[in-house]
Amino acid sequence: MNEPIIIQQAVPMKTSSLTQLQQQLREFARERDWEQFHSPKNLCMALTVEAGELQEIFQWLTEEQSRNLDDDQRMQAAQEMADVLLYLCRMADVLDVDLLAAAASKLENNNRRYPAEEVRGSAEKRR
Amino acid sequence: MNEPIIIQQAVPMKTSSLTQLQQQLREFARERDWEQFHSPKNLCMALTVEAGELQEIFQWLTEEQSRNLDDDQRMQAAQEMADVLLYLCRMADVLDVDLLAAAASKLENNNRRYPAEEVRGSAEKRR
Amino acid sequence: MNEPIIIQQAVPMKTSSLTQLQQQLREFARERDWEQFHSPKNLCMALTVEAGELQEIFQWLTEEQSRNLDDDQRMQAAQEMADVLLYLCRMADVLDVDLLAAAASKLENNNRRYPAEEVRGSAEKRR
Amino acid sequence: MNEPIIIQQAVPMKTSSLTQLQQQLREFARERDWEQFHSPKNLCMALTVEAGELQEIFQWLTEEQSRNLDDDQRMQAAQEMADVLLYLCRMADVLDVDLLAAAASKLENNNRRYPAEEVRGSAEKRR
Repeated sequence: MNEPIIIQQAVPMKTSSLTQLQQQLREFARERDWEQFHSPKNLCMALTVEAGELQEIFQWLTEEQSRNLDDDQRMQAAQEMADVLLYLCRMADVLDVDLLAAAASKLENNNRRYPAEEVRGSAEKRR
Repeated sequence: MNEPIIIQQAVPMKTSSLTQLQQQLREFARERDWEQFHSPKNLCMALTVEAGELQEIFQWLTEEQSRNLDDDQRMQAAQEMADVLLYLCRMADVLDVDLLAAAASKLENNNRRYPAEEVRGSAEKRR
Repeated sequence: MNEPIIIQQAVPMKTSSLTQLQQQLREFARERDWEQFHSPKNLCMALTVEAGELQEIFQWLTEEQSRNLDDDQRMQAAQEMADVLLYLCRMADVLDVDLLAAAASKLENNNRRYPAEEVRGSAEKRR
Repeated sequence: MNEPIIIQQAVPMKTSSLTQLQQQLREFARERDWEQFHSPKNLCMALTVEAGELQEIFQWLTEEQSRNLDDDQRMQAAQEMADVLLYLCRMADVLDVDLLAAAASKLENNNRRYPAEEVRGSAEKRR
């Protein structure tokens, strides 16, 4: 009986969840022996640097203009946002933090802290 | 005939994906009439501020110490990381950016840009 | 013959220049044995954190509101700006950088790079 | 009678103090009609972006490496530090903040808050 033929395909990476993204980033670092550079301190610095690059796109725009980016600007923003997410996920992996659970918990706190009927439309409270 | 007894439960929010998190944040902003403050420019500022708060945890730690946080520090880091993710998701929603797709695309670029065999263990290349 | 009367005064520190500020910060660190924490990497992280704290004041304000801070906001901004300057000066001291000379040189470059008649009122060029 | 010969000299700008730097930056903005973009909100964003560019130099360096920059890295750091100072001074001018006075006041506070004999060599206290 023959073995089934297995064709090794260059399958594009599928990234369907944060968990999967973290695994891919872990593998990426491992293959390059870059875990040594990926201390939480360094990853956090890199995350902040990427946040700054994202902010550079918006610094001289009015709020109105920032709501109406052209395609180039939106693409550029998407790429910088991706960089922020990559470092955030890598950091979550190294620190063993469940990002979605932490975000859900924070959002519940915010729901209690800022009752809709009290803060509606108000610029006074933090949002 | 009696009405069925309905027990009002405090159901914790389920957040099982970035997409769901974005929907919850959209609702959160809508209920508070905060869309007016959520220009991409402002959301990006808030994201960077949260990245700074995350960084404050690590600024005086050695890299080694940052790899060995105690429970309090790790909890604090998780909360600041959650804040970064919340603003990143809110921004993605406002700008109609698919975060996971953008991250997967960026990661594929990085795979091409930094071939493992060329950059292994090297601090020279960006990582 | 009488000794001159010496009145011990609580003399406030005089800080009349960046150079003097750097000397005072150097002394401040030396007295506390904090030079060990003041690597350029750490000082830069602290500077960025302070920039974030400054930015927190402005994140939900309109540009117009940011031009019309009340006294409390202006005082708070002044204190965060001071923190940025303190870490910048400390960093300049550790790296032996002449801040005013570097700034003057950068300003001359900007004068050449952005000729007034070409960029007047334009949001296209960086400013 | 002859007209006196006037030699047009390329006189380098002298910048001997923060006050003078602020005046030069005010003039720079005025000549380009850029005051309209220089809201405190925008200037603060630009300052934070420059802090991020400075941080990019240090993100993958060890603390030890950051204390031993080569000439290129030190020059690059000096230029980014200059950018931070330029936006800080411009912001101080727009908000009418006396930077040196604010820094001296903050330093006095820190002297009281962190008595040398109590915090010597300690990584626990903020520094």
